[in-house]
Amino acid sequence: MRLSRYFLPTLKEAPSDAQIVSHQLMLRAGLIKQEAAGIYAWLPLGLRVLKKIEQIVREEQERAGAVELLMPTLQLADLWRESGRYDAYGPEMLRITDRHERELLYGPTNEEMITDIFRGFVKSYKALPLNLFHIQWKFRDERRPRFGVMRGREFLMKDAYSFDIDEAAARVAYNRMFVAYLNTFARLGLKAVPMRADTGPIGGDLSHEFIVLADTGESEVFCDRKLVEMAAPGHDFDAAAVQAVFDERTALYAATEEMHDVAQFEAQTAEGDRLSARGIEVGHIFYFGTKYSAPMKAKVAGPDGQDTEVHMGSYGVGVSRLLGAIIEASHDAGGIIWPDSVAPFDVVVINLRANDEAVSAACEDAVAKLEALGKDVLYDDTDERPGGKFATADLIGVPWQLTIGPKGLADGVVELKRRATGEKISVSLEDAIARLTA
Amino acid sequence: MRLSRYFLPTLKEAPSDAQIVSHQLMLRAGLIKQEAAGIYAWLPLGLRVLKKIEQIVREEQERAGAVELLMPTLQLADLWRESGRYDAYGPEMLRITDRHERELLYGPTNEEMITDIFRGFVKSYKALPLNLFHIQWKFRDERRPRFGVMRGREFLMKDAYSFDIDEAAARVAYNRMFVAYLNTFARLGLKAVPMRADTGPIGGDLSHEFIVLADTGESEVFCDRKLVEMAAPGHDFDAAAVQAVFDERTALYAATEEMHDVAQFEAQTAEGDRLSARGIEVGHIFYFGTKYSAPMKAKVAGPDGQDTEVHMGSYGVGVSRLLGAIIEASHDAGGIIWPDSVAPFDVVVINLRANDEAVSAACEDAVAKLEALGKDVLYDDTDERPGGKFATADLIGVPWQLTIGPKGLADGVVELKRRATGEKISVSLEDAIARLTA
Repeated sequence: MRLSRYFLPTLKEAPSDAQIVSHQLMLRAGLIKQEAAGIYAWLPLGLRVLKKIEQIVREEQERAGAVELLMPTLQLADLWRESGRYDAYGPEMLRITDRHERELLYGPTNEEMITDIFRGFVKSYKALPLNLFHIQWKFRDERRPRFGVMRGREFLMKDAYSFDIDEAAARVAYNRMFVAYLNTFARLGLKAVPMRADTGPIGGDLSHEFIVLADTGESEVFCDRKLVEMAAPGHDFDAAAVQAVFDERTALYAATEEMHDVAQFEAQTAEGDRLSARGIEVGHIFYFGTKYSAPMKAKVAGPDGQDTEVHMGSYGVGVSRLLGAIIEASHDAGGIIWPDSVAPFDVVVINLRANDEAVSAACEDAVAKLEALGKDVLYDDTDERPGGKFATADLIGVPWQLTIGPKGLADGVVELKRRATGEKISVSLEDAIARLTA
Repeated sequence: MRLSRYFLPTLKEAPSDAQIVSHQLMLRAGLIKQEAAGIYAWLPLGLRVLKKIEQIVREEQERAGAVELLMPTLQLADLWRESGRYDAYGPEMLRITDRHERELLYGPTNEEMITDIFRGFVKSYKALPLNLFHIQWKFRDERRPRFGVMRGREFLMKDAYSFDIDEAAARVAYNRMFVAYLNTFARLGLKAVPMRADTGPIGGDLSHEFIVLADTGESEVFCDRKLVEMAAPGHDFDAAAVQAVFDERTALYAATEEMHDVAQFEAQTAEGDRLSARGIEVGHIFYFGTKYSAPMKAKVAGPDGQDTEVHMGSYGVGVSRLLGAIIEASHDAGGIIWPDSVAPFDVVVINLRANDEAVSAACEDAVAKLEALGKDVLYDDTDERPGGKFATADLIGVPWQLTIGPKGLADGVVELKRRATGEKISVSLEDAIARLTA
């Protein structure tokens, strides 16, 4: 992609109402533009990251056996009356009346609708276990939206819903999502720790939040340091395997501020392993049994022919919020440092003298070779001065910068810089390409 | 994907309120489920097709130089007051009040918002030409939603917006989208004819609808038969090349019922070439000059340093509607016949005796080999009887059916059926795979 033909409106200064670093950097790097309080347009660079995150979340859901569908943004109020949540949900629910005076709402979550889809089609235990997910825009009318996409009103969420014949099977489904989430966040370059959580308005018996540790996190969390260092569990989704992962992680102390118990923390955790840190919630999973299937009559015939209410869980990932969380966890004074897996481009090729034919030809050659090898390349072909180009490249956080100028060209070298470390080397173009595609 | 672990709820009979064949088949084949009048959930099979269509639309937009972003579904009413459309739009606009009594609306289109984004960032003619598109859910509160996704209320639309320094440049942008649309619809397996159209509530001077011909189309259209047979123009987006395509197509008569002029049709078209047919609108493009940039003050400094209002166009494709249009144009008594490019799976492997270990092993081998070659495979591993499996495979319209049963296995053959023609051949598995990956 040629920068001169792209739409990447960077800002020198963040607007003064952006209080946290991820919000400031998302505005400065041209990722988002606010359209109303808590409602954002995703500019091209931001959309690229959003889609990469979405795709990783999707792949890890599918590897865990979940099947994707897509529910609409608007829902009938009557569906929420069936579960009893329509009146209970409060002012965070955006209530809408259409031209025929029918009551709709902009879905803040989809337990009711997925239960309705399930009961409309599934009649036998033989279709279970079933886990359906979608990745769709949601709306929660936050009283005080702030922190950019971290506490927006219109936001992109992945929500999965599991259906099982009994509690034991539902616990397997829960454990599978627990494992899928650990894999997901690891691929996103994040250290996310599962913490026992309050179930809140979703309800139910069992719930974990997945918390990213970042100095600028929204709340205080407490956990055993060993949890932070554990590797992703991988893709064995056998019932015993996921139970073992669940047991291993939950044997160690981890709690959000609201669930924290100092005495238990100290009893359970060696002094040197007691970690108190700031955290950002990026995922939340729930097992809630028959809370929705009972009032909404979502039943299947069991092996004995008797109808039985299905046991359900729901599993959310804040896809748009993750951009903010990743930036909070990975930035420096120069700007964003994207993990390779979610970077909007793999490499930015910087032309130091765009009006020089030989330099431009060398840049175009580099771009073509990298693209042929499957790399996403941003080509800075503008006539901006070099200092501005380097500052922009640092700000937008592309993992690699490949700089070509007249002097290097004469010497047969290009400069390759790793954004995360700042390390620079002068090598031949062939060497640089080999390193970028290793 | 194993059918036994998938979610594909097919119906024997279409609900009686589904009046047109695409709506009936989308319900019967388990593509969609209605959630409210004109509001649908996309079940897994429908979502797969929707995403394939969306990706083809996206790729053809990008090849024409358009850059993707993503605007939110909700917009501020005040933005529409700037253009004067808030009051003019009428009851099709879904108007919403949030908890702080701010007026929002669910975007039916995005001319105002994209103009606001443009004016916020672009100050110089040097950034032009610029064409920004997004693929996002829209809402139009149709008085009488019907025909499934063909006239839904919540629908997925690709809308692009071009910005140029003057009318001549804007006409080039218009022609590029004209060409991109011809390429897009051809890749979708459709014969779509551009027809001069009324500009309606978008406004402007110049507009074309792209109409798919189908016996069950919503309206009558008239055109020169030669237009239907022309091949896609390809990807030369040079100003002269796109003008030549535009001139070649628009030299021939083509008009929707509302724009039809019998005398002109007869004067312009040889008798044998006069085609009167039913059509379905799948795209609509507009050039409207400064209709939005003037009231909203979207100006750039020109080469002479003077501020000038930009000339704009907008370009819509009904992505979700296209599923209905494709089915209207491609089905038979047995069900849907998906064009290869948008089929939810490339091939369905049908196991004729799922409780037979040798047959199942052969099927799993075939699935693994096809998937390793990059094919999307649906594997019917259920214990349904063969007749039911064949009927389902026909109904859901996957282009190829590969059937493996005990008798064929003993003879070393599988049966390969092409859904579109019904042609069946008995060949070795290796032969079948070679044909599927040719």
